[in-house]
Amino acid sequence: MYLVGRGAGLIFVIAVYDVGQKRVGKVLKTCRKYLYWVQNSVLEGEINESSFRKLKIELANVIDEEYDSVIFYTFRTTKYSKREIMGVEKGGEDNFL
Amino acid sequence: MYLVGRGAGLIFVIAVYDVGQKRVGKVLKTCRKYLYWVQNSVLEGEINESSFRKLKIELANVIDEEYDSVIFYTFRTTKYSKREIMGVEKGGEDNFL
Repeated sequence: MYLVGRGAGLIFVIAVYDVGQKRVGKVLKTCRKYLYWVQNSVLEGEINESSFRKLKIELANVIDEEYDSVIFYTFRTTKYSKREIMGVEKGGEDNFL
Repeated sequence: MYLVGRGAGLIFVIAVYDVGQKRVGKVLKTCRKYLYWVQNSVLEGEINESSFRKLKIELANVIDEEYDSVIFYTFRTTKYSKREIMGVEKGGEDNFL
């Protein structure tokens, strides 16, 4: 109806991580399999639910749950969202909106 | 109509920054005036348009636009969004959804 989806089962994901130095490389590498790197410890991308589940399972094997933190913001639509950048565009594909 | 707002003129903001070491403290301090710190270089909050404009003006005076990067994701509604955390909740108020 009024919800304009982003295609069958696709969701837009922003992932931000704050993990111990030892695990930074592995966490980044894992996230990069599914998402685009946009800035230090921030990735974005449009993926399906199945890939999102895989990403979370892989990350669970990499992070230290007692110490590290990964936050995912997921969007079924980006219709009510906006992305603004100040300064330089560091990386990634700008596929938000 | 079908857009369920978050109150008059309020928007939900996620700010992520990637700035030179020298400016990290100032950028964090500026963002904290308006938003809650949730993770290393990530803040969130529900603010009005006027505060959001002020935040951007203050940050413009702090960052080096040739080198630093600040990304704002803004939401007129969080109805189609979700926030998931893996590992520890590092800080801030969880006022998303």
